[in-house]
Amino acid sequence: MPRHLDYFTDQLTDEQRRTRTFLEIGRRAGNFPSAIARTADEDSEVSVWCSNDYLGMGQHPAVLAAVHDAVARFGAGSGGSRNIGGTNHRHVELERELADWHGKDAALLFTSGYTANDGALAVIAGNPEGTVVFSDELNHASIIDGLRRSGAQKRIFRHNDVAHLAELLAQADPEAPKLIVLESVYSMSGDVAPLAEIAELAHQYGATTFLDEVHAIGMYGPEGAGIAPREGIADRFDVIMGTLAKGLGTAGGYIAGPQDLIDAVRTLSRAFVFTTSLPPATAAGALAAVRHLRTSEAERQSLARNAQLLHRLLDEADVPYLSSDSHIVSALVGDDALCKQASALLLDRHKIYVQAINAPSVRAGEELLRIAPSATHTEADVQKFAEALAGIWQELEIATASDRAAGRTSAVKELV
Amino acid sequence: MPRHLDYFTDQLTDEQRRTRTFLEIGRRAGNFPSAIARTADEDSEVSVWCSNDYLGMGQHPAVLAAVHDAVARFGAGSGGSRNIGGTNHRHVELERELADWHGKDAALLFTSGYTANDGALAVIAGNPEGTVVFSDELNHASIIDGLRRSGAQKRIFRHNDVAHLAELLAQADPEAPKLIVLESVYSMSGDVAPLAEIAELAHQYGATTFLDEVHAIGMYGPEGAGIAPREGIADRFDVIMGTLAKGLGTAGGYIAGPQDLIDAVRTLSRAFVFTTSLPPATAAGALAAVRHLRTSEAERQSLARNAQLLHRLLDEADVPYLSSDSHIVSALVGDDALCKQASALLLDRHKIYVQAINAPSVRAGEELLRIAPSATHTEADVQKFAEALAGIWQELEIATASDRAAGRTSAVKELV
Repeated sequence: MPRHLDYFTDQLTDEQRRTRTFLEIGRRAGNFPSAIARTADEDSEVSVWCSNDYLGMGQHPAVLAAVHDAVARFGAGSGGSRNIGGTNHRHVELERELADWHGKDAALLFTSGYTANDGALAVIAGNPEGTVVFSDELNHASIIDGLRRSGAQKRIFRHNDVAHLAELLAQADPEAPKLIVLESVYSMSGDVAPLAEIAELAHQYGATTFLDEVHAIGMYGPEGAGIAPREGIADRFDVIMGTLAKGLGTAGGYIAGPQDLIDAVRTLSRAFVFTTSLPPATAAGALAAVRHLRTSEAERQSLARNAQLLHRLLDEADVPYLSSDSHIVSALVGDDALCKQASALLLDRHKIYVQAINAPSVRAGEELLRIAPSATHTEADVQKFAEALAGIWQELEIATASDRAAGRTSAVKELV
Repeated sequence: MPRHLDYFTDQLTDEQRRTRTFLEIGRRAGNFPSAIARTADEDSEVSVWCSNDYLGMGQHPAVLAAVHDAVARFGAGSGGSRNIGGTNHRHVELERELADWHGKDAALLFTSGYTANDGALAVIAGNPEGTVVFSDELNHASIIDGLRRSGAQKRIFRHNDVAHLAELLAQADPEAPKLIVLESVYSMSGDVAPLAEIAELAHQYGATTFLDEVHAIGMYGPEGAGIAPREGIADRFDVIMGTLAKGLGTAGGYIAGPQDLIDAVRTLSRAFVFTTSLPPATAAGALAAVRHLRTSEAERQSLARNAQLLHRLLDEADVPYLSSDSHIVSALVGDDALCKQASALLLDRHKIYVQAINAPSVRAGEELLRIAPSATHTEADVQKFAEALAGIWQELEIATASDRAAGRTSAVKELV
């Protein structure tokens, strides 16, 4: 008789185990991007270049004050689900602020961005029966999981390919209710979707539009409300999905949209109903972050300056990266082992932490260093970083942009 | 052409909308179970009788100090997923502490109890292919969702019915890998599973055992480690699932189990991999709560005293409740409208907050008031509560325990 548990003994390859050894990072509030990295050998001070706290709001005095105040007032947790004792005034205020920020009727908090996509799309794509969903092939795992859970029919369009989307829409049953799901800034490629063209197609076909702006809110557009408002077409996207854990520096996720749709998700989404709400202090911190970012341009300007400078320096050093559309600068390595070596060298020699991104987060052959300059890096930090990266590119003989243009890829070289 | 979005306009009945109007509750740290309830008319001080912060750890000075300290040191959020910059030493310490508490090799944090069940079971029930899962019919929504996601074959056994489970196990393919999933204390019925008998069956059939102890950890057993250790059979359960949001007063969820299984979940669970980790401060607060509850009996004793007193007073008042196994005292109303009326009267007249539990959280006809005395209620609070409840039972002519024993159910009476 095979025991179920025995299966797990041989489930993972050694390689998989090693890949998922997590580096312990103690970020130091007030000193971002500096952190203490803890390894078997020693603790050392490093500069973090892969945090999603892009604007440093996780250490902003207004955010920390709001968190401390709410912990002192309301305690550590909420004590229940939103419907059973777990709705604090801070949740309600934050939902109002987010709705207002995005120019929508209402917003709804989830415990994470993952559950916001997963839980909301299960309802939005799952109703009414027969809904056909058009989804960008690079959409995040949480979108894919929510769509799977919905049971809706899916048509995957090639990444940012408007012609392909148009073709799929034209092929679909004209009577079928339609939903288009996309991101504004893509997590691993850093490029920006052609929002205006997609919105136009959606309008033409009566499709609902669900736009994931997790890598944009706080960072782009008037008041930091995202790419759609930057393009002046916020009203063409029915549902905006966002996170509190990146530009807003805290934790949690949300959707904003029409009242009826929000009410349906609030009532029917099991990931929303059957879970303890965010700690009031987390909601309070996020609220302070949104309010700050609606009026302050300093963080956005600093992030944009750092991203532009990094793009220029990497161009000069012939280091290939996927896109200059955003602050996500994905340097393409294209080999699993080389990617880990590059990450290890940055850490050991330069005290720079950038996590190597391998499968399943990207496809095999597209391994990359996902570099996230933050508003808290200085110009000198960016220069030091670019120099270090260029040096490693040479040392490890990773294919340069020119190599790639000429069809050459990286040679894998064993380090001593 | 039907527009997808139009569907949502008529999606909800008025009844559904009203049901999901959430009462705003401002718990006051240092004064639990007191809270400020905010209604359209006024703010009023209420006593909360439906919080899952059963032991009041959400206001414990050691917990609040740990949270404040971690916010000041590390900031508001973690800044990334566990694999990409989001592993703080507090996460690692908490996982070690939880593993040690449950006597398991390792533990793994999730952002909520919902995602712990959903994300872990997707992997544990989903591997190897052909696994057959035996699941109690009253298992929580998050367990049901994780099992659905796993794609595993499911056999549902009648609630706590060992003979039925034995029958289903005997019918299953002897060669199929098997997994039994159950809770120790059930959320809505408050009764406790026959753990020893189920463990024995699991052993007999080589089945892995996954035990959800969310309503038990902190509250029962030596060091508060749960019902399985209270029964002296902790080692017979392979995986323990718990929450940080109830007895531990904070937010988040976890599993603890054998190293290989934990590594598999850590590597393969999409709900774990593709999400920002808990704020370090939340992990720090939960860590302080576990450490406190491993040595302090005061909170457990107070909770047990309050639960026993409430059981006795309700018995005397002939108010029917589902089980006296635990601190979850579900008073059976059995009618949707009456249940809401009872809840409203408690709040308006007695300043007592107990949420009415209606479908889909319980089956129609089983509507109830889920009463959760906490360690922070006093004996006088319990007496006042029981009197109020008994009065409402009479006034609304809700079926008493004697009525039910004689086959009579509640008469629905309209309030003026």
